[in-house]
Parts: sequence; structure tokens; C-alpha cells
Amino acid sequence: MSLTDKQRFGRKVKQLRLAKGWTQEELAEHTGLHPTYIGGVERGERNLGLDNLLKIARALGEPPAALLLDFPK
Amino acid sequence: MSLTDKQRFGRKVKQLRLAKGWTQEELAEHTGLHPTYIGGVERGERNLGLDNLLKIARALGEPPAALLLDFPK
Repeated sequence: MSLTDKQRFGRKVKQLRLAKGWTQEELAEHTGLHPTYIGGVERGERNLGLDNLLKIARALGEPPAALLLDFPK
Repeated sequence: MSLTDKQRFGRKVKQLRLAKGWTQEELAEHTGLHPTYIGGVERGERNLGLDNLLKIARALGEPPAALLLDFPK
């Protein structure tokens, strides 16, 4: 079963969040996004916009490109 | 006048499109997106979703992360 793009993205967000030792609630707090939204992103259920992608990257202290490194050409 | 995030992203798409020698219509054709949508993205007027970001990157033959390299941490 191959991952969908959204699942692949969500897995990366979760990986980076856990590396910071944060809960989804803490990531939500740092982004200003709702915890259920963060949960949906991590489960691959959200086709998030560029603005929210950047909010998540910046909250995690990552360059935005890092969130897309798992995507090949 | 600093660029907005959307303008920064649009500038990168335009840069990569021109490097391929494509018109906006040709990029639209390769992505299945509408030419006016592509124009809006390049002008920084669109908060595009992850799905369309990936379509544009793949059409350009770029790893998706390349479209976000101009964004610092």
C-alpha cells in the first residue's frame, strides 16, 4: 500500500513534531492552527495551503523545503 | 518592499518555468491546471494547496522541495 501525497506529507510533519518532543496540541499552539486540523494533516486528510505549510515549518523551526524532502521528482 | 510568501513562491515557479522555456499555457497544459490559475500563482495571488504545488513541481521535473528553497527557516 503506497502512501498518498497527503499521507507522505503528514508523516513528515509528525516525524519533525516528535523530534521536537511536541504533542499535536503544542504544535497547534505554536502555529495558531486548531489541534484537530494538525491531526488531520498528520493523518493525510488535509490538502493544506501554502500558508499553513509555512506556518507549520516555521513553528517547527525547519526550512519549509524540509517538509517536502520525502517527495521525489 | 518585501515579498509576501505567495509572491516569493510565485517568483520561484516563474523562474523554473522560464528555465524550461515554457509559457504559462504550456505549464498549465502539463499540470492540468488552468492558465489563469498559473498566472495567479506566479503573481502571488494564490494560496495553492499541496496537491497543486506537487502537480507544478512534477510538471517542471523538479523535486517539490525545490519550489520552497527560497524560504528561509
